[in-house]
Amino acid sequence: MAKEITSQKTDYAQWYNDIILKAGLADYSAVRGCMVIKPYGFAIWEKMQQQLDKMFKETGHVNAYFPLFIPKSFLSREAAHVEGFAKECAVVTHYRLKNDENGDGIIVDPEAKLEEELIVRPTSETIIWSTYKTWIQSYRDLPLLINQWANVVRWEMRTRLFLRTTEFLWQEGHTAHATQKEAEDETVQMLNVYADFAENYMALPVIKGVKTANERFAGAIDTYCIEALMQDGKALQAGTSHFLGQNFAKAFDVKFSDKENKLDYVWATSWGVSTRLIGALVMAHSDDDGLVLPPSLSPIQVVIIPIYKTKEQKKLIDEKIAVILTSLKALHITVKYDDTENNRPGWKFAEYEMKGVPLRMAIGARDLENNSAELVRRDTREKINASLENIDVLIQNLLGDIQQSIYQKAKKFRDENIIQVNTFDEFTTALDQGGFISAHWDGTSETEEKIKDLTKATIRCIPLNNNEEAGSCIFTGNPSTQRVLFARAY
Amino acid sequence: MAKEITSQKTDYAQWYNDIILKAGLADYSAVRGCMVIKPYGFAIWEKMQQQLDKMFKETGHVNAYFPLFIPKSFLSREAAHVEGFAKECAVVTHYRLKNDENGDGIIVDPEAKLEEELIVRPTSETIIWSTYKTWIQSYRDLPLLINQWANVVRWEMRTRLFLRTTEFLWQEGHTAHATQKEAEDETVQMLNVYADFAENYMALPVIKGVKTANERFAGAIDTYCIEALMQDGKALQAGTSHFLGQNFAKAFDVKFSDKENKLDYVWATSWGVSTRLIGALVMAHSDDDGLVLPPSLSPIQVVIIPIYKTKEQKKLIDEKIAVILTSLKALHITVKYDDTENNRPGWKFAEYEMKGVPLRMAIGARDLENNSAELVRRDTREKINASLENIDVLIQNLLGDIQQSIYQKAKKFRDENIIQVNTFDEFTTALDQGGFISAHWDGTSETEEKIKDLTKATIRCIPLNNNEEAGSCIFTGNPSTQRVLFARAY
Repeated sequence: MAKEITSQKTDYAQWYNDIILKAGLADYSAVRGCMVIKPYGFAIWEKMQQQLDKMFKETGHVNAYFPLFIPKSFLSREAAHVEGFAKECAVVTHYRLKNDENGDGIIVDPEAKLEEELIVRPTSETIIWSTYKTWIQSYRDLPLLINQWANVVRWEMRTRLFLRTTEFLWQEGHTAHATQKEAEDETVQMLNVYADFAENYMALPVIKGVKTANERFAGAIDTYCIEALMQDGKALQAGTSHFLGQNFAKAFDVKFSDKENKLDYVWATSWGVSTRLIGALVMAHSDDDGLVLPPSLSPIQVVIIPIYKTKEQKKLIDEKIAVILTSLKALHITVKYDDTENNRPGWKFAEYEMKGVPLRMAIGARDLENNSAELVRRDTREKINASLENIDVLIQNLLGDIQQSIYQKAKKFRDENIIQVNTFDEFTTALDQGGFISAHWDGTSETEEKIKDLTKATIRCIPLNNNEEAGSCIFTGNPSTQRVLFARAY
Repeated sequence: MAKEITSQKTDYAQWYNDIILKAGLADYSAVRGCMVIKPYGFAIWEKMQQQLDKMFKETGHVNAYFPLFIPKSFLSREAAHVEGFAKECAVVTHYRLKNDENGDGIIVDPEAKLEEELIVRPTSETIIWSTYKTWIQSYRDLPLLINQWANVVRWEMRTRLFLRTTEFLWQEGHTAHATQKEAEDETVQMLNVYADFAENYMALPVIKGVKTANERFAGAIDTYCIEALMQDGKALQAGTSHFLGQNFAKAFDVKFSDKENKLDYVWATSWGVSTRLIGALVMAHSDDDGLVLPPSLSPIQVVIIPIYKTKEQKKLIDEKIAVILTSLKALHITVKYDDTENNRPGWKFAEYEMKGVPLRMAIGARDLENNSAELVRRDTREKINASLENIDVLIQNLLGDIQQSIYQKAKKFRDENIIQVNTFDEFTTALDQGGFISAHWDGTSETEEKIKDLTKATIRCIPLNNNEEAGSCIFTGNPSTQRVLFARAY
């Protein structure tokens, strides 16, 4: 099975698609640009959701649900927002079908035209702030710390499984605050939650930074982001947290009276991550044999495969494994005992490699005699001949090691691929090798646009806590006070 | 606050709306027929989801996600299905907006018209079976036991918070099987899961039955349902499980080769429950002071309210409560210590009554001296002067009692309101008093329709394991072999 995967070197994009399809993460659908998230891919998303939801609740947030549809006029209320989101979106114009009078199936009933068209939400700031207007009168109603798990639709022209699909699943936090400082703190807090999740659960090293004006969320004052590096040297934005100032409060006239009974507009943030993270997970860690999953997010952490010839041997293995299953479950380790008879052990080995299961344990009749089993790590392929005595604890430790080791490998790769350059020549050469390019920039949108047009590279972020450093812009030679990170990006 | 609720007797519909709005379960939105599920209402939905999801997984199901949009032509593939679902639905016709050339805001771009319109899913049989076609070739691919948590849209003319909204949240299971028997068994299994959930978690007694042809899901061979009785004597369908036969497999040409290598169409089921269950929860148990929630689904199970005059008193109470909070959490009891100072204890009492919190504990300085506290049950209003010694275990037991007692009360009411009648006069008289009417019916759709036109009553179900009993139809006098349950319904 593994042989069917295109190698990364041959064609990275095809390698990516092969893994998604063959590991059973997702599938194409009959609807343009929309994908089907298959059970194995969805199980990863569920793991991500559970952990993120826990982190959101620990930081005081609650979940709610707002309508899928947004009246067309709402999108226009915030000037920058409409420019960013009104363009490519799904528009509902009618609310009924009817039988064609010529017997030609069903047609849209022209009499059921909506007075005002509805947009399928590309993001929910407008519908949520129109609601917050009725919920917020006084400082006592603040802060509102609300998150929503939802589907959104952006009519993308070029789509790619998980990374860019017409419909995708995400969470969007929308908070309302009495002061600018509180909203800014919230923005940074959620950026840190995302970075924590990426590094400690996805094993994905990220750079925290702030976007330039060009790359900012439409309607935001500041967009913070976490940026990761994929194995092909392209960057991927893994999450964003926006400080929205009073823009949406002004657009929807949401004022509150403070303790001195003075009216002011409410301060806002929004922040989100999406099923795109599954694409990042694939691109960051996997190899030519399939997925490599960090144990923290792996739907199956250990697979046990019995090897036997006779029923008697099988029975002895079953008995031994039953005890091990119980002790692994007691350690909250997700284990699958695959003793199905449809496929031979070799086929199963390849299948679970493809699916990225972090640890495989094989046990045969002779292993049983020696009270041992063979463990194989998915990440390093290392084989370990382990005694069955305390194998549960060994497995627990190995899973911890694998989690760390996947992270360290990705971090080493990322760190080795942050290249400092000082001239535009160096810049274009470095770009073609991939990675983050650390370079001086004169701070203007004009220069940023020109560099993008010439090289397809964008400024991924201005890293937080960046060092002050005098220099001159690689493109214009104008003075600059700090380096920023450029890259070609997904 | 409680005074603002309309009493059930004055206006049941208004009472219902008052509770939804004032307990903070949901709110109206700017989009016709769509509601906002507020954090407290959503917390109940999360509890429902967690429990149901656990039950689905324990019965071998996995989650996946299919597209929001359905190509218009897909709906027409199954003849009965299109009649049921193609009529009132949201239709996406365009994929872009643009700035109006007259400067009049944004308009739908006429050049961005879709070749084929997309329907926002009212239910997902068609998009899912079009996908299953590519997943199923052999009996080895079966069964497919997949569930989806999703939003769906049905363009209802008259909407009502939770009970009937244009957009709602639900889960829809879609399974594929090699044999008719296996699919039928699955249909009944999921009906039993729903009944178990309704009775043991929602404390909602339900009657399991099968729908008549008139009330069947569009495209099903058989629709099984659980039916509950609300406090105004109207019935509410709380969940359905459909045996779809080979209808969708035929519509989407989904065949498999069996062990003998013979091709046959795949057998199907689908089953779902929705946010409507929150409406059922409100209507089944609540009273004129607000919500009454079963402890199993209550976002807060116990609220503790301190009563004090001095900071010293507060400090002593805090110290005592800290210990109790720890021991309650160890018992997995969800507890809230409301020591906010914005509102007085009396206001808080009314607020948590409104929100249906099953147990309230109030503790003052004198209670502390006596090492006691006052517990009040939301369901019976019973006051219990309890020693703080082992109060955690007492609370645990009381929560169990409340869960049982709410169920028993609803069951007694339901049982007392199943009325046997033998003539049409008795039937109409009984109907006006509300409840399930058990009556003979001649088995024809025609009679059923006429009764519905005259009385607005529908056959809710033919109960499973119904007694055979010779009789004559209350409407036509024609012979009948069993009684069925009629009611007016939500």
